[in-house]
Amino acid sequence: MRYRLYYWPTIQGRGEFVRLALEEAAADYVDVARRGAAGMSAMLRLMESERVERPPFGPPFLGAGKLLIAQTANILLFLGPRHGLAPAKEEGRLFAHQLQLTVADLVQEVHDVHHPISSRLYYEDQRREAKRRAPELLAHRVPKFLGYFERVLARGGKGFLLGGRLTYPDLSLFQVVEGLRYAFPRAMGRMERRLPRTVALRDEVAGRPRIAAYLASERRIPFNEMGIFRHYPELDVPR
Amino acid sequence: MRYRLYYWPTIQGRGEFVRLALEEAAADYVDVARRGAAGMSAMLRLMESERVERPPFGPPFLGAGKLLIAQTANILLFLGPRHGLAPAKEEGRLFAHQLQLTVADLVQEVHDVHHPISSRLYYEDQRREAKRRAPELLAHRVPKFLGYFERVLARGGKGFLLGGRLTYPDLSLFQVVEGLRYAFPRAMGRMERRLPRTVALRDEVAGRPRIAAYLASERRIPFNEMGIFRHYPELDVPR
Repeated sequence: MRYRLYYWPTIQGRGEFVRLALEEAAADYVDVARRGAAGMSAMLRLMESERVERPPFGPPFLGAGKLLIAQTANILLFLGPRHGLAPAKEEGRLFAHQLQLTVADLVQEVHDVHHPISSRLYYEDQRREAKRRAPELLAHRVPKFLGYFERVLARGGKGFLLGGRLTYPDLSLFQVVEGLRYAFPRAMGRMERRLPRTVALRDEVAGRPRIAAYLASERRIPFNEMGIFRHYPELDVPR
Repeated sequence: MRYRLYYWPTIQGRGEFVRLALEEAAADYVDVARRGAAGMSAMLRLMESERVERPPFGPPFLGAGKLLIAQTANILLFLGPRHGLAPAKEEGRLFAHQLQLTVADLVQEVHDVHHPISSRLYYEDQRREAKRRAPELLAHRVPKFLGYFERVLARGGKGFLLGGRLTYPDLSLFQVVEGLRYAFPRAMGRMERRLPRTVALRDEVAGRPRIAAYLASERRIPFNEMGIFRHYPELDVPR
């Protein structure tokens, strides 16, 4: 079965967490909205159609046969066990999902640093508020989240968040580190000294053959200032 | 088995979505941190203990035998099928969870309206930014979210989000309506005219015997200005 992934075609965004899982699984999928205007309008039609039985609130959503599944973490909940990216037992699956939801919380906070007032307005129209929010994010929130994942890695002690095998939240934590490095290189440079296990996990994921091939391909959209992780130097910590 | 719910003892907050499910299920549970100082310190100990195999990032979390499960939506994912609050089939369960995650997104946006800069600072220290964010929330975001749930109710056409039977996201949507009515009575008064199905669902949930008994009990913490839904009149729409 060929999956259909529906997501905005010009950004990594939340869709990237799904793309990484599909790529590591070597799953057969088409990134629908990246197939030109027809793909984009297919996505918008599905969002507005009266005939979709279980409508999504927004992208990303995944078509799998007749199923249409939305919400990033929910898509991964579906894909994980089907592709060897989730633990076999229920307690492990719940913990994997718990970690994924914690990643989602961090991602939301990182997004909101450049949109503290409204996602409808341009960054330039809320820059003053963004400049006030950024030091809070970088001094308190990101260290708290990343410190938590570092502790989880330490507790397992086997390199991955859930022990000795890669699961989908590992891929997502990789993506968070990459995004934070892009957006806040100075802050991350300092923080990473206290995150040896997280950095090692990032390296492990980046080196996996399928992920390495994906990152080197045109399928990987570069980071940019339309996505979640944006590099606005004035929001990073001072030199 | 008696569940142990760990959540801040003075607010409804995110814990309330779990409490409502436990109450509707007539589940045996103890609201640990509401049992005085010993309960509160038991909660904090669990958050910091080195011996917890699968640590939570924060409350709420649920103890179920040896399991400790965090993240509100994840707790409901666990409880739903065990207590007749989730559909039997996988596609229904995924959609219930998708709706719950969409509720969680709305709840986060509602929280952030009074904390647009940082959850560490007092509201009074970010009131200017809050006043700028509130009209965006009430004119665009809340109508978009509630309009989505109204459409889902219309599509099913049987009174509940997933058709003819109550599932856990119905309880959560009830809580969202109650919270928004408390926080923004003027804005909600106007919006509800276009949300007949959502209001009917709210009434249906409020009238269920176990929920009605819960709401009338001391176990239901009143809304207040420490929780997610806060009534600051200056953030509501003008008269």
